[in-house]
Amino acid sequence: MAMRTSRLWERQLIRRLWEAVGKPAVEVELWDGEVCGVDRTRAVGRIIIREPKMLRRLMWNPSLAFGEGYATGRIEVEGSLVDVAASLLAGMLRAIPPDGRKPWRERLSRRRGHSLIESRASVHHHYDLGNDFYRLWLDEQMVYTCAYFPRENMSLEQAQIAKFDHICRKLRLRPGDRVVEAGCGWGGFALHMARSYGVHVRACNLSKEQIAYARRRAQDEDLTRLVEFVEADYRQLDGKYDVFVSVGMLEHVGTEQYPALGAVIDRLLTDNGRGLIHTIGRNVARSLDAWTERYIFPGAEPPSLKQMMDIFEPNGWSVLDVENLRLHYAETCRAWLSRFEAHAGEVARMFDEQFVRMWRFYLASSTAAFLTGWLQLFQVVFARAQDNSIPRSREDIYQYPDRRSLHETLAASAQN
Amino acid sequence: MAMRTSRLWERQLIRRLWEAVGKPAVEVELWDGEVCGVDRTRAVGRIIIREPKMLRRLMWNPSLAFGEGYATGRIEVEGSLVDVAASLLAGMLRAIPPDGRKPWRERLSRRRGHSLIESRASVHHHYDLGNDFYRLWLDEQMVYTCAYFPRENMSLEQAQIAKFDHICRKLRLRPGDRVVEAGCGWGGFALHMARSYGVHVRACNLSKEQIAYARRRAQDEDLTRLVEFVEADYRQLDGKYDVFVSVGMLEHVGTEQYPALGAVIDRLLTDNGRGLIHTIGRNVARSLDAWTERYIFPGAEPPSLKQMMDIFEPNGWSVLDVENLRLHYAETCRAWLSRFEAHAGEVARMFDEQFVRMWRFYLASSTAAFLTGWLQLFQVVFARAQDNSIPRSREDIYQYPDRRSLHETLAASAQN
Repeated sequence: MAMRTSRLWERQLIRRLWEAVGKPAVEVELWDGEVCGVDRTRAVGRIIIREPKMLRRLMWNPSLAFGEGYATGRIEVEGSLVDVAASLLAGMLRAIPPDGRKPWRERLSRRRGHSLIESRASVHHHYDLGNDFYRLWLDEQMVYTCAYFPRENMSLEQAQIAKFDHICRKLRLRPGDRVVEAGCGWGGFALHMARSYGVHVRACNLSKEQIAYARRRAQDEDLTRLVEFVEADYRQLDGKYDVFVSVGMLEHVGTEQYPALGAVIDRLLTDNGRGLIHTIGRNVARSLDAWTERYIFPGAEPPSLKQMMDIFEPNGWSVLDVENLRLHYAETCRAWLSRFEAHAGEVARMFDEQFVRMWRFYLASSTAAFLTGWLQLFQVVFARAQDNSIPRSREDIYQYPDRRSLHETLAASAQN
Repeated sequence: MAMRTSRLWERQLIRRLWEAVGKPAVEVELWDGEVCGVDRTRAVGRIIIREPKMLRRLMWNPSLAFGEGYATGRIEVEGSLVDVAASLLAGMLRAIPPDGRKPWRERLSRRRGHSLIESRASVHHHYDLGNDFYRLWLDEQMVYTCAYFPRENMSLEQAQIAKFDHICRKLRLRPGDRVVEAGCGWGGFALHMARSYGVHVRACNLSKEQIAYARRRAQDEDLTRLVEFVEADYRQLDGKYDVFVSVGMLEHVGTEQYPALGAVIDRLLTDNGRGLIHTIGRNVARSLDAWTERYIFPGAEPPSLKQMMDIFEPNGWSVLDVENLRLHYAETCRAWLSRFEAHAGEVARMFDEQFVRMWRFYLASSTAAFLTGWLQLFQVVFARAQDNSIPRSREDIYQYPDRRSLHETLAASAQN
């Protein structure tokens, strides 16, 4: 495809844009083969802009234009997409102040809110793409949240189980505890808690497909006596519980709803109730980029720790433990990306080539975001202010018998 | 001393006050022997108001009047002072909303600010009471911050060393690291870091007496090559360091100074710098009570986690780990109180009986504050956003050889 020659002002404009995003270690090639940007020895990859039209769109809304351009093939990336995205994000962390003053104006995109109807639509957009699709590249338990790799060379399967157990140990689950889980995905964690810790779980989710899948699994495993899956929003939960847990839901709640979420937690938990929230977060409050908001996660809003405190402080809850697992999510996304690439042909047959490119861009840029510190992963443990049964040390979280023997211990204690 | 009979309206007023502070499980006895409040089976103790005049003062500013009344003997407490204080604080946690709406108006006390001069005066007020005084009831290393009791039946001495090591392991200190310590007390922690971890420490403090004491200890131990003590405010520090650490200083910094403190940390640390702040805190922002502000810690302000984030977020720092050690501080204060009581006679000779009662009230009510969740103790570990050398897990903090062998390991590694 022969394109017209690039003009001097266009090359200068690209140079300015490159400077404005913190001079990332990438080269930029224009449609006519002209290369702008850093010298080749430093570059981790090359961004190729295939059409003059893309230039104006990149100026107007860089994140949206870049994501759309990549998905449609109007922008191509040579070299590792993760490395190129990481270089861009690291540059932007240096160059773009977090308070929203951006050198290139982002179009004011209408963000989706968090009413019950909007939340349902947002969940449907992402999580109801079909279990067959997610089965291609998630682990066998279908866990779609950050895994935990406490040792090197763990498989994704092992790391998802390790994450489950890490959370259960932080919560000091005891057989018989009543647990409420807000946002349960395909039910893997709820089933694990019941199976391995002997607790009763009530788990909710707004995704029809996920709930149906989770219910079948509970029946197959004969765990319906311990686990109940309900198609509901966290605001619709009732009852009294010893433990509140939520893994990967808070990103979708919306910061303006945090006091409401705090009130729900306060209402659901007993006087000695405790809880854990596992969520993608940020070092500094920033709004979600326009591309991710439009194509991947409408209404999503990863909070800073300061923002998260609006859940706990108004109700006087005591934060006991915060852990940041950022690099574990980088490793998780990398594993997903590699499995996704291995099944890209099948995905293209399910959807189309543009979907494959969009999803590749999402998984690669997510990997880069956790790798560069653009995004964080927080696990926050909390308890009521006056609860003095809180553990003396976190040592027990790390003194862990092998899973089989724990399982046996629990089975034995349940018999007594 | 014969006092006039209490009037009906006075007894009703006391009843109202008792209800307003959440109906604590204490009896209130008036000067004429009249007892108001709960039935004796529930009460953990009795508050005796010895003069009618106290009533008006309690109405006007309960915290100030109660503290002053106790110190002067116009108010007496029967039963455990810790238990009575805990009952009062637990009641107030239930009854008094944290946003400042108080049922009995507290007089608007002028709070001390945090300019260099004011900070110096505040530090002098508390920490320059004389090393001889503090030596009576602190541990042998003169550590005046929350200890760490990971196991039962540890002595205060052991628990202070355990605290030191807990922080050093969270910071993953390596021989040769350059450490800056803001607010170093009598130098115990700085000396421990140098002695046991082979790091270089520059430690500052505004208390003349404490700095002089710390310098003598460094000379006695022949550690002046590794440790430098400077009489300075944290804002006056310069140089570049691998590690920033501050144990028990933030309480005095003032929340309005947090962005300034964050900028100081940002300036002092290298590109791979990391840090830890250990501080008394709160579940919800509240101003310090008037009595503590006036008599014990002028200018002090224990922050909520949300307030603390003003240190980290503006500079894009990444919070890696937060631990709440509230009950450890209750145990520490209890140990101090019991040692203090054992030396009350000597303290009375150094100061006077009123000082003894004031200090007893301070140590007992602090114990109660940590016991009831009125106060928290946070340790926050942070690192630069882009630092990917952060540890994979916190497991290593808890896998710890005995101190002697660690010391030997470090000595050996220093020789290579």
